[in-house]
Amino acid sequence: MRRGATGHLINLLRKVHTADFAGLYPELTGSEQIKLFRLLAERDAESGGELLSYLSREAGAALLVRLDPETGSRLMEECPEDDAAQILGEMPEEERTALLAAMKHEDAAEVEKLLIFDEETAGRIMTPEVFSLHENTTVAEGINALQKAGDVELAFYIYVVDDRNHLVGVLSLRQLLLHPPDSRIGTLMNTDLISVRTDTDQEEVARVAQKYDLIAVPVVDEQGRLVGIITIDDVVDVLREEATEDFYRLAGTSEEERRHPTVWNAVRIRTPWLLASFAGGILASRVVGAYEDTLKAIPLLAAFIPVILGMGGNIGTQSSTIIVRGLATGRVERGNLARVAGKELFTAVLLGGIYGLLLGLVGWLAARMADLPVHTAIVLGVSLFASMLIAATIGTFMPMILHRAGVDPAVATGPFVTTSVDVLGILVLFGAATFILLGAG
Amino acid sequence: MRRGATGHLINLLRKVHTADFAGLYPELTGSEQIKLFRLLAERDAESGGELLSYLSREAGAALLVRLDPETGSRLMEECPEDDAAQILGEMPEEERTALLAAMKHEDAAEVEKLLIFDEETAGRIMTPEVFSLHENTTVAEGINALQKAGDVELAFYIYVVDDRNHLVGVLSLRQLLLHPPDSRIGTLMNTDLISVRTDTDQEEVARVAQKYDLIAVPVVDEQGRLVGIITIDDVVDVLREEATEDFYRLAGTSEEERRHPTVWNAVRIRTPWLLASFAGGILASRVVGAYEDTLKAIPLLAAFIPVILGMGGNIGTQSSTIIVRGLATGRVERGNLARVAGKELFTAVLLGGIYGLLLGLVGWLAARMADLPVHTAIVLGVSLFASMLIAATIGTFMPMILHRAGVDPAVATGPFVTTSVDVLGILVLFGAATFILLGAG
Repeated sequence: MRRGATGHLINLLRKVHTADFAGLYPELTGSEQIKLFRLLAERDAESGGELLSYLSREAGAALLVRLDPETGSRLMEECPEDDAAQILGEMPEEERTALLAAMKHEDAAEVEKLLIFDEETAGRIMTPEVFSLHENTTVAEGINALQKAGDVELAFYIYVVDDRNHLVGVLSLRQLLLHPPDSRIGTLMNTDLISVRTDTDQEEVARVAQKYDLIAVPVVDEQGRLVGIITIDDVVDVLREEATEDFYRLAGTSEEERRHPTVWNAVRIRTPWLLASFAGGILASRVVGAYEDTLKAIPLLAAFIPVILGMGGNIGTQSSTIIVRGLATGRVERGNLARVAGKELFTAVLLGGIYGLLLGLVGWLAARMADLPVHTAIVLGVSLFASMLIAATIGTFMPMILHRAGVDPAVATGPFVTTSVDVLGILVLFGAATFILLGAG
Repeated sequence: MRRGATGHLINLLRKVHTADFAGLYPELTGSEQIKLFRLLAERDAESGGELLSYLSREAGAALLVRLDPETGSRLMEECPEDDAAQILGEMPEEERTALLAAMKHEDAAEVEKLLIFDEETAGRIMTPEVFSLHENTTVAEGINALQKAGDVELAFYIYVVDDRNHLVGVLSLRQLLLHPPDSRIGTLMNTDLISVRTDTDQEEVARVAQKYDLIAVPVVDEQGRLVGIITIDDVVDVLREEATEDFYRLAGTSEEERRHPTVWNAVRIRTPWLLASFAGGILASRVVGAYEDTLKAIPLLAAFIPVILGMGGNIGTQSSTIIVRGLATGRVERGNLARVAGKELFTAVLLGGIYGLLLGLVGWLAARMADLPVHTAIVLGVSLFASMLIAATIGTFMPMILHRAGVDPAVATGPFVTTSVDVLGILVLFGAATFILLGAG
């Protein structure tokens, strides 16, 4: 490509599996990516559309934003419509409108049908092409229809509908083979079937698919009519997104920043957490102010604020991450709450003990050099121990309490842990110093 | 159950979908969970084994550790062997050995065959039962064999083997239907097939399944013989584990603590990060010590250490979380590095500006009340702005550099960001104070 051997490139793309080629895509620089797709749009739009469908939806959206709408539209017309809708859903409003306007009317209409549904709903991620049979069809007619159906996406389950296209049953391909050719599908089908509605949240779709170990989930509208299918590969994407959402929440931002990563959104979405942290910091400064006499007597106490708060923050984050993730995956549940909490607290006691002793040693050396009372060592060691134990306790129980109260622990745990660790860590350090050093002095 | 209506309970279990019942399981208390499975093992071990297979492997392992080996073995014998192996893999060595010893010899042997393979490999998570046909079989014989095969797990693809059970091709059920009954399978099959080996890492299996949009991946041994199949529902579990691993790493611990959550492991695994953080804290205290004169002149500077370091740590974590997760999911790649970094830094400039102004205001009020020079306000505002910008810069570029160097950014980013933010934040605060306040004073 760098040598301009474009003919070779297109031949290569025809020979290797598109998925393999898509794997190389992120290794290209931005301008190489654009050049590649310009070339494909011109010479072989079909391969271009296929390649586009194998990119992650984020990468696809990022590419199309940088391409002109005409080139983009040629690629999008060749891209399967569920993937096209996914990619368009990731694009900013303005670029999306321009791209849809540049597409052929019928292709744009197909994709727009999916874009009607809210983001993160079943309607948005479904494939509208689904193979179904009428309940009065016979097995022989069904096999015949299937053979003629051509390239319908993954016909693993065969959905059965009535006269008005209401979903009434399901049948596996294998079941179809097991019965005599003249049996009616309606008498063989399984009527105890799982479906979701177009407005079902995509996380709920993922949960349903996981819970019942389904390879595909049928989607119905409000009237119960079959309108699409969601296959497990799309569910996998949803699960990945759900995990990303939890990552973002733990760090004090939200999935919204991932979907629409503008500076303005980042500022707006991160404000609540930063404000909480700011308020905690100001509160901590008031606590220090209250101990002004202690601070004036031993200014070097200030030097140990970072290590006391930092170590507390770290172990608090470790405990809260383990509990938040455990609650999300089901590893932590009512049956083992006590055992999990016990492990976290005992770990904190040991780690607090080790690092408390270590800081005591450092404090003893510092006190000797700076001609301070030897008790300083005890103050520092005890404060670090207490700060780490308090932090682990808050990090362990806060998510459990939030979960029990029905609040998503990923959202509120982070700010609460860091803020309360800051305030309580300062209280412990200056409280202990005042009590031990000044009380003793 | 609380009323001891055990007969009703078993009837209920027979009526509702096991997956639905499994969904209620985490709501039970620990002793209720044990009571339920004791009852099932006695009255209806088959339902018990099925219910066990629907629990998460972690929940299953946690339960079996608390049950006696005899009760556990009765349930395990009725549990599908891939799920049984998964659950056993999560249990501590000792309990696992006891449980296997209590199981019927042939059932234990089946499960042990899977346990031979290393943790987190394809061999460990595969189902050894797989439907395959010899290449010389005809379509009619194949359909016949399939009809007789009974309850083979998910026959979506039909794998084709030669005389020595080497995997030579694959065929979809639909392709089987499309050809005349006397065609030989070997002439119809697709020989361009994707498989993994028993020792392939499970994350690689997930990547392969995702990349090629496969519903199932066949597993072969070193000689290329078909030995099992991994279905997409197991791949979904792997992806969830992979995300959990990243959560743990970002918090400074590892997946090993999740798999073997003993206090000793927690202490051992968390030590490197905490040690780095401790060293950073001590370094920060040396920096404060170097500015002893400044600190003695304005002791209240110490009161603002928590807010300067805390806000820096927060925004640094936000940027690094977004970059680390983006690199893991492919959202951040060479083509958009500059744009993503620009967004993070511009966000930090705005947020740093807002909170810098706010802290300046607080500092101005504090200075007026405590009779300090008004310049204190400038020192605080500038320090917070600088600390937040520095933190976001490190949080943005550190994972990118690690990723480029081939190091997993999730492992090393966390400690590096928090530690360097602590040291640099202190430097900025005391440097600015010395320069502006003492220089001006």
